[in-house]
Amino acid sequence: MKQKKFILEESEIPRRWYNIQADMPNKPLPPLHPGTRQPLGVDDLAHIFPLECCKQELNTTDRFIDIPEPVLEKYKYYRSTPLVRAYELERALGTPAHIYFKNESVNPLGSHKINSALPQCYYAKEEGTTNVTTETGAGQWGAALSYAARVFGLEAAVYQVKISMQQKPYRSMIMRTFGATVEGSPSMSTRAGKDIITRNPMHMGSLGTAISEAVELAMTTPGCKYTLGSVLNHVAIHQSIIGLEAEKQMEMAGEYPDTVIACFGGGSNFGGIAFPFMRHNIKDGKTTEFIAAEPESCPKLTRGRFEYDFGDEAGLTPLLPMFTLGHDFRPANIHAGGLRYHGAGMIVSQLIKDGLMHGVDIPQLETFEAGVLFARTEGIIPAPESSHAIAATIREALKCKETGEEKVILFNLSGHGLIDMTAYDQYICGDLQNYQVSDEEIAKNKIGA
Amino acid sequence: MKQKKFILEESEIPRRWYNIQADMPNKPLPPLHPGTRQPLGVDDLAHIFPLECCKQELNTTDRFIDIPEPVLEKYKYYRSTPLVRAYELERALGTPAHIYFKNESVNPLGSHKINSALPQCYYAKEEGTTNVTTETGAGQWGAALSYAARVFGLEAAVYQVKISMQQKPYRSMIMRTFGATVEGSPSMSTRAGKDIITRNPMHMGSLGTAISEAVELAMTTPGCKYTLGSVLNHVAIHQSIIGLEAEKQMEMAGEYPDTVIACFGGGSNFGGIAFPFMRHNIKDGKTTEFIAAEPESCPKLTRGRFEYDFGDEAGLTPLLPMFTLGHDFRPANIHAGGLRYHGAGMIVSQLIKDGLMHGVDIPQLETFEAGVLFARTEGIIPAPESSHAIAATIREALKCKETGEEKVILFNLSGHGLIDMTAYDQYICGDLQNYQVSDEEIAKNKIGA
Repeated sequence: MKQKKFILEESEIPRRWYNIQADMPNKPLPPLHPGTRQPLGVDDLAHIFPLECCKQELNTTDRFIDIPEPVLEKYKYYRSTPLVRAYELERALGTPAHIYFKNESVNPLGSHKINSALPQCYYAKEEGTTNVTTETGAGQWGAALSYAARVFGLEAAVYQVKISMQQKPYRSMIMRTFGATVEGSPSMSTRAGKDIITRNPMHMGSLGTAISEAVELAMTTPGCKYTLGSVLNHVAIHQSIIGLEAEKQMEMAGEYPDTVIACFGGGSNFGGIAFPFMRHNIKDGKTTEFIAAEPESCPKLTRGRFEYDFGDEAGLTPLLPMFTLGHDFRPANIHAGGLRYHGAGMIVSQLIKDGLMHGVDIPQLETFEAGVLFARTEGIIPAPESSHAIAATIREALKCKETGEEKVILFNLSGHGLIDMTAYDQYICGDLQNYQVSDEEIAKNKIGA
Repeated sequence: MKQKKFILEESEIPRRWYNIQADMPNKPLPPLHPGTRQPLGVDDLAHIFPLECCKQELNTTDRFIDIPEPVLEKYKYYRSTPLVRAYELERALGTPAHIYFKNESVNPLGSHKINSALPQCYYAKEEGTTNVTTETGAGQWGAALSYAARVFGLEAAVYQVKISMQQKPYRSMIMRTFGATVEGSPSMSTRAGKDIITRNPMHMGSLGTAISEAVELAMTTPGCKYTLGSVLNHVAIHQSIIGLEAEKQMEMAGEYPDTVIACFGGGSNFGGIAFPFMRHNIKDGKTTEFIAAEPESCPKLTRGRFEYDFGDEAGLTPLLPMFTLGHDFRPANIHAGGLRYHGAGMIVSQLIKDGLMHGVDIPQLETFEAGVLFARTEGIIPAPESSHAIAATIREALKCKETGEEKVILFNLSGHGLIDMTAYDQYICGDLQNYQVSDEEIAKNKIGA
């Protein structure tokens, strides 16, 4: 019988993260203070983030960073995640391609987000923090942070986008089960929230409102730090555990990927699977193709501009060098809540500029068609976000069917869709639609200060 | 670092199931025809079940049964499941006991039910069946069957208890995503359903109504077979893969269990983890204690009678020799829907009679307290059913704390609770309660024909 899954012994789980900043031909541009437009240093960022995360954020020299022992101990709870050969999907497509996926949905929280939640909480605790706070949209990051906070004995307060709280009620229940406080944003618990509600009592929230509230809580509460689940460089460093494991597992399978694919919101799962392989393009002459799959309705990689822009809608963050649709771009209400973000992380933005990777945009209906096919062949109902990666993989595999190429395609299954079943039900009942964005809609949004 | 998880290579996954009927000191009594009270043979059962399942059902001689290759191929999708040492739970309890759990929640369907759904559908397909049908309460079995039917190219129709469909809507969405037809029972699609609705238009269903409808569909539809997720002997045979793997994995951990614990509804996950170890009590002089954890509100093992009784409320099945509360016993509306069943399987009933295992009954609030502690220590939100096993494990571990014994305790985590989050939310909000059953309530129910 052919081997289906490749799993590492616990002793083989990587003990260091990979930091692609050390190998990039052009380093990412620095974040800037919005008033002075001066580059920000570690100390500037450390007002709201754990210090060690700030150091990693700006670390462009160390290729590898040791994973702290207590984080490694917790990684063992669910790592290594399996690398799986998708034989049934290949058969259904009739493709000669070899399709592999890294299954990050196999962990207690249901997505890759836990890989960064654990170190962020660990560093916060080590530095004397007692409380952490964050925002969450779909809730994958909020759930992971709630668990990680509990693990390291921190209190957690999560601002969840109010509309998302109503659409996916199970996620806030998961956070509360781990002991976190969950507030729908905008809330009456912060100045920012009160102001928003005063102006618009029926505001159903956005990542922008939730970030404002979490940042305010962190800045006004002694012993409280803010954490973020994507976009930033240190998050990509933590997520590199995905690709480092996959590298060893592909070796077990006796193959090396011609194509690496992940869905793209802020870049955390994409960077996680892609960067450890991309270094071999940069340093060892490999020619792997890297594809970031974004929603047609939020096409920052394929149709955005590379500019300094705010990371949040309200303009409270530093200016970040990113491919962006404008910080007040409002993505359509697609079910892949984790991909509804206007900008790309700094590292990825530079890599796109340098031609080391590229984006593709996928219509919502194509992602659900891909998700249902994957469920019915490989047995796993994927998160709507991850279905973007599956759809892009199917496109590549069907090209191989035409050309006869036996390409090796690797994608990251970033999470499962068990909390998103209403979306699948709507799809099966024919109640979902695609959302195109016109050039005018993109052009009208604000970029920069 | 201490090893946390023990996982088998794919080549080490057992290739044969274990059939404890071959080793039992007293064989289970045979099922009887309710009219003639004559023992039923393979041919009698084969009217509604796949033939091979009927043969296994009455096979008291073959200790091991080969797992068909196509089923093994599909087992590889999620097996081996990890054996995990619960270090954090041990620490939280301050117990010297070594607590291990077999994590059957790590599969695409979320519970152990898939282990038997795959072979039942495989045999049905091999025998020329085109359609399968079943009933489901909480929906774990229905979800597993829907996936397995899809795998082997069968159409599936699932009758789900109507009240359960409303309480856990995601489960029916999962079934539909795999392509199954799901009907709330009682439905207007069968004679039995229509009769029930005619008598009581607001009837919210029970396993009794759903079994009646599924059996009727199988009996009146050419090419359609009925499948069952628990209670019967062939289901326990299929589930033995759990314990056979655990045996090898405990050996990797260098330990042997003093106590084996599982929750108990009809006996499928209990038999799965327990029987492969129990054979060493029967044959090799081991003295492991086997504990089946049932709800306080449905205490068939601890307070039921050993009698011939119907397997369903309506009295359509053969008479089965079982510990029973009476086939019209109505369990309280606890959240562990999978444990709300009036009788125990034939094998387990005989084993209890022979003193090889025993039951404990656990109040609902104790199970949720255990489930939340487990989530906060081990990171996995357990199914309400599985929390019964965790609660029983905690009781045993706290006894060890008193006595200082370093007992090795193994329990089966039969499934995760991600689809049951409303129950956790109710618990955290203080909205759940215990349900005691009086002797009078038990005494008034019907047992036998």
